[in-house]
This record gives sequence, C-alpha cells and structure tokens, in this order.
Amino acid sequence: MHQSLPASAESGREFVLTVSCPDRRGIVHAVSGVMLEQSMTILDSQQFADATSGEFHLRMHLVREGRALPVADVDAALAPVAAEFAMEYAVHDLSRRPRVLVMVSQQGHCLNDLLFRVESGSLPIEVPAIVSNHEDFRGLAEWHGVPFHHVPVTRDTKPAAEQQLRDLVAEHRADTIVLARYMQILSADLCADLPGRIINIHHSLLPSFKGAKPYTQAHDRGVKVIGATAHYVTADLDEGPIIEQDFRRVDHRMSPAQLASVGQELEAMALARAVRWHAEHRVVLRGRRTIVFD
Amino acid sequence: MHQSLPASAESGREFVLTVSCPDRRGIVHAVSGVMLEQSMTILDSQQFADATSGEFHLRMHLVREGRALPVADVDAALAPVAAEFAMEYAVHDLSRRPRVLVMVSQQGHCLNDLLFRVESGSLPIEVPAIVSNHEDFRGLAEWHGVPFHHVPVTRDTKPAAEQQLRDLVAEHRADTIVLARYMQILSADLCADLPGRIINIHHSLLPSFKGAKPYTQAHDRGVKVIGATAHYVTADLDEGPIIEQDFRRVDHRMSPAQLASVGQELEAMALARAVRWHAEHRVVLRGRRTIVFD
Amino acid sequence: MHQSLPASAESGREFVLTVSCPDRRGIVHAVSGVMLEQSMTILDSQQFADATSGEFHLRMHLVREGRALPVADVDAALAPVAAEFAMEYAVHDLSRRPRVLVMVSQQGHCLNDLLFRVESGSLPIEVPAIVSNHEDFRGLAEWHGVPFHHVPVTRDTKPAAEQQLRDLVAEHRADTIVLARYMQILSADLCADLPGRIINIHHSLLPSFKGAKPYTQAHDRGVKVIGATAHYVTADLDEGPIIEQDFRRVDHRMSPAQLASVGQELEAMALARAVRWHAEHRVVLRGRRTIVFD
Amino acid sequence: MHQSLPASAESGREFVLTVSCPDRRGIVHAVSGVMLEQSMTILDSQQFADATSGEFHLRMHLVREGRALPVADVDAALAPVAAEFAMEYAVHDLSRRPRVLVMVSQQGHCLNDLLFRVESGSLPIEVPAIVSNHEDFRGLAEWHGVPFHHVPVTRDTKPAAEQQLRDLVAEHRADTIVLARYMQILSADLCADLPGRIINIHHSLLPSFKGAKPYTQAHDRGVKVIGATAHYVTADLDEGPIIEQDFRRVDHRMSPAQLASVGQELEAMALARAVRWHAEHRVVLRGRRTIVFD
Repeated sequence: MHQSLPASAESGREFVLTVSCPDRRGIVHAVSGVMLEQSMTILDSQQFADATSGEFHLRMHLVREGRALPVADVDAALAPVAAEFAMEYAVHDLSRRPRVLVMVSQQGHCLNDLLFRVESGSLPIEVPAIVSNHEDFRGLAEWHGVPFHHVPVTRDTKPAAEQQLRDLVAEHRADTIVLARYMQILSADLCADLPGRIINIHHSLLPSFKGAKPYTQAHDRGVKVIGATAHYVTADLDEGPIIEQDFRRVDHRMSPAQLASVGQELEAMALARAVRWHAEHRVVLRGRRTIVFD
Repeated sequence: MHQSLPASAESGREFVLTVSCPDRRGIVHAVSGVMLEQSMTILDSQQFADATSGEFHLRMHLVREGRALPVADVDAALAPVAAEFAMEYAVHDLSRRPRVLVMVSQQGHCLNDLLFRVESGSLPIEVPAIVSNHEDFRGLAEWHGVPFHHVPVTRDTKPAAEQQLRDLVAEHRADTIVLARYMQILSADLCADLPGRIINIHHSLLPSFKGAKPYTQAHDRGVKVIGATAHYVTADLDEGPIIEQDFRRVDHRMSPAQLASVGQELEAMALARAVRWHAEHRVVLRGRRTIVFD
Repeated sequence: MHQSLPASAESGREFVLTVSCPDRRGIVHAVSGVMLEQSMTILDSQQFADATSGEFHLRMHLVREGRALPVADVDAALAPVAAEFAMEYAVHDLSRRPRVLVMVSQQGHCLNDLLFRVESGSLPIEVPAIVSNHEDFRGLAEWHGVPFHHVPVTRDTKPAAEQQLRDLVAEHRADTIVLARYMQILSADLCADLPGRIINIHHSLLPSFKGAKPYTQAHDRGVKVIGATAHYVTADLDEGPIIEQDFRRVDHRMSPAQLASVGQELEAMALARAVRWHAEHRVVLRGRRTIVFD
Repeated sequence: MHQSLPASAESGREFVLTVSCPDRRGIVHAVSGVMLEQSMTILDSQQFADATSGEFHLRMHLVREGRALPVADVDAALAPVAAEFAMEYAVHDLSRRPRVLVMVSQQGHCLNDLLFRVESGSLPIEVPAIVSNHEDFRGLAEWHGVPFHHVPVTRDTKPAAEQQLRDLVAEHRADTIVLARYMQILSADLCADLPGRIINIHHSLLPSFKGAKPYTQAHDRGVKVIGATAHYVTADLDEGPIIEQDFRRVDHRMSPAQLASVGQELEAMALARAVRWHAEHRVVLRGRRTIVFD
C-alpha cells in the first residue's frame, strides 16, 4: 500500500525522483546529499537492490522548502552524481498530472470506474480524450465533459485508424494510452513507438489464458480462481510486463458469463491501481518485469 | 465452506450418496422418496445442474434412523430409481475412512501438515503407509507410527519401483495416493490404472507455469500472485482436473526462494482441502473439470 | 458463488421458492412432489439444516414448463404441504424485479456503482428514485434518468423528513431501501416498520468499529485488515444482521484518508452483492444472522 | 513481502539497524554517511515518516565489507549522529538469533507449525524451551529435541507458576515469549516487566471478539469473515499492539467448531509471520500501533 500523492501541488514544490543504476556502496548517501543541498525534505523513499540483475532502484518523494524550484534545476543538480554512478534518472514535478488517453470498445465498466475516480479526485491524471471503435460511450464521455472520438477499425482501415490515433495522441498531448477493454490489437509498430506508455487490462491471470475469451478458457479448464492483469503493452500480445493483478475465488457453478461478471470488478480495480501507480511514477519497467514502489 | 463430517461414525448409520445423470424433471423427488422409505434423514444436500453438459449432480449426506443398515441395502433400494434416470451413483458408509498412501520426496511441509491434521482428528482419512524416494522423512513417519517405505527411483529402476508402488498400494489396501511434493513423474500406465485415485499438489496456479521450477518461472514473468494447485493426476502432466487452488499476493522484492517459502503454506492448505473433499466424497470428476460440493 | 438469474423473465415462468420450517424427515420429498405436479423443473436448489436452531431452510429456483402460471397458483398448490410442515414460505415470480429506493449523502461511489450495474444489466433491480439530504448527485441521477428527491434533514425537521421518505416509498412502490453511504441515522420507528427491507453499508468489518469514523478508528487501533459490511438495518445501530462483508489487507503507511479510499471499493462491492442477493431472494433473515444461498 | 534474512551469518558481518527519531531533513544522509565510513553496503532500507506523530522510522539491512566488526563498534560509530537527531536506535548482529520460549496449552497446531519452520530453516529463531500447563506436547517437544517444562497453573499456584516461568526465561536466556495458544492469562506485572517481548495469537480479528470463545462469538454474530491476530501482550487483555492478522471468508453453514478448524490455519500463519518479523527486527512498536517493515 502506498502513501498517496497530494490532490494538487504548486509547481516547483513536490517532486518524484526515480533512479536506476548498478548497485554499489554510496548511492543513497550521494543522492540524499544532493537533495539536502537543494533544501528538499524526503517525504517517502523506497529502494530495491535486485540481486538477480545487480541493479539498484530508488524512488523518492520530495518536497522543496523555500521558494519553488524548476524541475530542470533539480535535474541539473543531480547530474554530477548521476554521471558518477551511471544512473538512469528522472525528476517529475507533481504539479503536472499525466495526460491519459483512454480507449474503450463496448464494455464500459473500466471506463466508468476510471472517470468516476478522476472526477472524485482519487486518481491523479487528466483524461483529455476518449477514443473508441464504437459509439456506445459517447454519452458517458460527454456527461463527464471529455471529448469523445469515434475511430472505427476494420481490417482495411486499420492503418488509417492507427494514424488517426497517433494524431489524437499528439493533438491531446497524451503521455499515456490506457486500453480500458479496447478489443482491437494495436500494430507492432505502434507498440514499439510508445514503449512503457500503453497500459492494457487483460481479463485473465496472465500468463494463463492469453488471447481470446479468457473466461471461457478458465471455465473449460475448471480453475478455482480467476483474475485480471494490467500490463504494459508490447508487440508480443499479452506478454508485456505485468504491473498489477487482482483475483478472486470461483467455483464450478459459475458459467463463463458469470465469471465475466465477477471479473469486471477485478479488471476495474487492477487497472485503476496500475494507472495510479504509473501516474505517480511508482512503476519501474525492467525487461519483462516491473518494480512497483506501491 | 462445508458442513464437516463426524470424526467417527457407527457402521450403517451415516452415508454419503453421490449421483450423476442426465438432467430431467423428478430426480430429487425420486431420490428423496427412496431415502424417506429407508428412514433416512437428509443432513445436507447439494446439487448442480450443469447447463453446459446437460448433466445433473447430487451429493446427499444422510443419517439412518432405527437399526443400522448395510450399504448394500441402500444401494439395492436405489437401483430401480437409478435405472429409470440412467444414474451413475455411489453410496459410501462414513464409518469407513479412505486409506491414503502418501508419497513424498525431500520437502516435508505437506507431509507434516497432513500427518498433524490426521493425528489431531481434523482430516478423516487413514494413512497406512508413507512412500518416498528418499530417506529424509523416515523419522517423521515413524514418530507418527506410520510405516515408511523407501523406494528409490532411477531411470533404470523406474519400472521396478512402480511395480513396488503397486504392490504397496495392494498390500496396504490404499484407495488413494497423495503426491505430497513427490518429485518423480508417474508413468502413463500407472496414471491410467488409477483414474481419480491419485492427487498431486503442483506449486503454481495451473495452467500457468507447468513443469519444472514454477516459482522461478513466476519470478521471471513478474506475476503479482502465486499459488498452488491440487489436482487429480492423469497421464497428461499437470493437466489433470483441478480440485483446489490457493493463492497469495507477492511483489517484485521476492526471490524465487522466497516465493517458494510462501508457496509452501499455499501448497499445504490446498492439498489438505483437496484430500478432505476427496475423502468426504465431495468431488465429482467430470472430464477436465471437477464439481466440488464443499 | 451463485448461479445468476436471467436478465428478464416472462411472467409466470420462473420462480424462486423460499421455505423455512422445523427440520424433520420428508420436507424435500414433499416440496419437490408439489413442484413436479406443477410441471416445474428445478434449476437450482440449496438447503441448510441449522443444527443450532433445529430449523430447515430451502431456496429453489424453478422454471415452469407448459403455459405460464400465476404466482398465486403456485402458492395455493403449496399450501397443504406448508401446513403439514409448519412452513414459512414465499413464492416469487422472477419477472417482477424488486423496486429499490437508494439513499445517499455526499459520497457517490456506491450510488455510481449501483446505477452502472443496473444500467449494464448485471443487477436485477429497478431503481424508481434516489433520495438524498444533499444536492450533490442530482446530476448523476438525472443522467441515468432516475427521479432525484432532495430531502434535507436537520434535528428539527427529522420527523417531517422521515414522513417525506415514507411518502416517497409509498409513491414509488419501493420494496427495499438501500442506504448507499447515507449519513443520517433512521429513527427506531422507521427501522421497526420496515424489517428486512432496509440495507445499509457500514465502512468497517462489524462488529469492529461501530459508529462514527471507522477508518480513523481502524488507523488508531493499527489493524492490518479493513473491510465493509452490508447489513439489514434494525433499531440497534450497526447491530443488524450481516448480509455480506468484503475486506483487504492494509499496512501502517496508510492514513485514515487512504484507508477510506481503499475502503470505497470494498463498500461498493459488498453492497452490490448484498443488494443482488436480496433481490434474488437468496437471503434468509433469522434473528441476528442471515443464511445466504449465494 | 520481505527480503528475507540469510539462514546463517558470520558474526560481525550482517547487521540490522533500526532508528526512530523526530522527522527532519538530513537523517538519511547522516545515517548513510556513517554506514559508508564503516564500509557497510545497504542491502535493504525501508523508512516511514509518520505524518500523524511527526516521527521518522528507519530499518536498514547492512553488510560489512572487509574484516568483521563488533556490533559495539557500529553502535559507537552511530552515537554522534544519534545524539544530533535525538534518535532511539539499535544495531543487531544477524549472526545472533533471538531465543524464543514457546508456551502452549492443549491445542498444538501453532506449536507444530513453529517447530517445523525452525527445523526446516525457514524461521530464524532458536527455541530453547517449551513451557506448558499441560503434558500433551511433551512428546512433540522431545521429538524435536527441545526441553519441555510442565508448569501447571491453578488459581492458587499462579504466582508460583509465574515465578517458575520467570526463572525459565532467565535460565534459557529467552529474549521473547511466544504464546502459541497458551490459554492462561499472564499477570499484569509479568506483562509490564517484558514489554514488547511477549507475542500472543488471539483467534479473532481484533478488536472484534475479545476474550473467551471468539469463534462462538463470530458464529453468533453471523460475520462473513474470520481471522486471527498476532499481537504484543500488554496488561490490557487483547488490547496490545497488533503485529499481523490473517483472515478468510466463511459462511452460514459453518458451526463454531468448523470456524475453529479453519481458524487454526489462520492462527498458525499469522503467528509465524509475526514471530519472523519480530526476529528479523522488522517491527517497530509505537504506542498501540506497530510499524512493520515486512
């Protein structure tokens, strides 16, 4: 469980720093030294030394005392230490919320859940647009005051539709795409062009039951637990790095349709957590795995 | 959750009836009529009409009033109704506990758990013998007063070892074999000869991570939940019908060894429930699926 | 887990029968006999012989073959058997969905969840009206096309407000009132007049943390699990019979506000299940306890 | 989930440092600076800034490079920083395992579970003695090679029995007492003399169902979830700070005896985790709450 971020923040006041580098002695001392010089107080700090890879990962939530500081200045202050330790690092000003373009097809439970969370202030993202290959949720989008774009997809129009999607991402300056039960497969090119920027919810406990109709597969196999998996999208379908999974006990009495009904709750919860963690810079993507400083 | 069976029962007093047949009107009325004539009171009754297969399944826990009744008499009383409705059925006298031969290799958590449950009266089985391809748990077995048979297995001796196992099953009149982390694969012939009579615990949430080293596989794939699966053994490795699964949330910090450590609790619990349900005639085996009247 | 009811049903075709009576031999045979005579097929049947109370409880889901049958006829057909066994019983025609008046204050997560489920066809109730002591959710109600009644409550106006509520219940022919985070306490008189017809969601794992600010209480006590409890309302605050509870692991890092945020998911899920089970006639209310044929 | 400690460690090589102090800027930098000077590598570090209390808490798992270092030297090196920041702190050499005296009455599931874990190397404690007010588990203790002391308790002999217990604690140099279903209440004096050194397992989800027969209380109240609570013992019965809770869904069909049977698994797991976390210096005791760096 996390310590959550503030609902709003003044620019130049609160930051999240993320660092990954080869593990060695002195990293924490060096980074915390820079932060001390910059009059930063550490609100939260989590770290993970990965014995398998030899890498060290750090996430710090910092608050600046005194006058506000541009993120570029924090960045610059860290540069010498980053060079010394061969760090990949990023500084995020929390006054800037990620802009998340949400895509949906004909099942709206995840979309409805995300929009309600954004509106009630519990999910720190902006949703500049909703894109769908169907018209079903235009009304819901408009009621929430979010532009709705209908982009139908057929085999023939897929390249054009993807170009339209790319244009919408650019137009709405979207950082992230969330596939909230969007039932079209994105092209390998698009996936490759937006690494770590597309989050999908798959309705099974991956790696079980990839592909189509996972609840029917789960029923046929007679499993006693079902789940949902939120993951980054890669060109390799349903193989992307897992961010979050939710799950629940089921039994023989449940038909595929009933599994799907229970699964909707799991999908909405797993996706909402994954999107929040992504938005709060809690997820470190590392090959096929994620480190989640939740 | 179940209504559990009595710790002990007098012969001819308590019965479990299980029925499977094509679903049609009148089954419950007919069966309950026979039981009424036999002065049986229904302590518990569970049924399932499987819309997918068109089959009806029933489990009744019955108590006989008046003098005790041989199970053969109950059987005979049901025969006309069984014929009329094309029933597969079985009547079990609860005074007779299943005899379960337990097999183990070098990890004893499931064995220790099963023996403690039997001894403390919470698992209604007899354990006439423990068989292992190693000597590690001879002491534990003997402390519990259970005969221990060391049957080493190498590639060359496997047929002979399996013959020895068959002999031990016969000698100890075992109804069921439980593979409590027994790390040898049984031959297809042996599996085929004992259908629905061998229960294995696999240390993953099947169908994820079949085969060797499932906790390492789970770590590499970065899943956020691990589990254990108790299933009937068929010739198709790790593909047998699932009886029970247990599961728990994990995170990126856990190494394969730590996943294995947490998983031991899940394995012991899933296996113990599966064995109890099997022993209480709660599991109906149907193709690749089970119906569990838990 | 349940076998769910059909999204719609023709009048006189599908029924749920619920029976409670002193336990004795022959009940199932007698009831199933009547159903057979009425050309009813049993789709599902669940029973519970309560050893503590000596009572027997039954819920049957039935489908009528041949022409449709008025519920009164099913009722009449059962009368002789009911008299013989001293049964309390009820027959419900599933073509008639319960009319549920929903009350809310200033937190809309449960209301939003219930309305989405009704609209998407997964919760078999009608919502004829929403009543609130605040104006916050008029827009949400109206977007869903449900009449919204603002009934403010102060200490002085409480009797008048409750009269207004009673009038609305009558006007909308509501069977049930659901308090979906309605933060006013109903009078003992009102509770007594609608026994088993008011469902509340309390934001703790009752009986822990009754009364105000349960998440703050949970934080101060340092519990490692929080939950939500859906229960029938009685005059005894937070002491009514529990229908459903949901729960999740938490840790020391979570502030009361963060517990509340996680708790919202639990509240919405527990309440939705309780309302569905109530609507599907799965809940038998017995003193302080419920029997839930889920 | 934790990163576990090594099964064994050479003296002066691996340490756990725990720190609590008023929160202010510079703590992490100062502490990590001392560790750097001492040629310590941080294997794991967890911290918590408690906004409610204004306190900062830190746990570091450190490994010394170069020659081994006495714990007193680490202690001394930290003293100036500790003084500057008004720290409570402790340094633990991991080569020294806590000595845990286990007490039990007539239910042995927790005792059996703890002993199996110690023996199989998954619980880093020494058990120098088992104390019981009954003789039931002398055989189990002796089979594990642990001295067993029978200390009967009656109302009249209670003071003498407690003196005997104090003597055994001294004789066996026990750091910690674990009440593994020990059904006698310790005197307020004894509790006060060993603050944070006695761990109990209570068979309910505290604060629900304090005192006697919690499973019967849970049955009567009709809850849908039961649990177990491991907590530090204080003079205030069942009110001590909670270390860990485990829990599981139940339903109306389960009698108090069946709840107790399911609860045994929860008790054993919650207690084992609490004991491990205590032994690995992961638990910070703060008033009625604990911080668990799991």
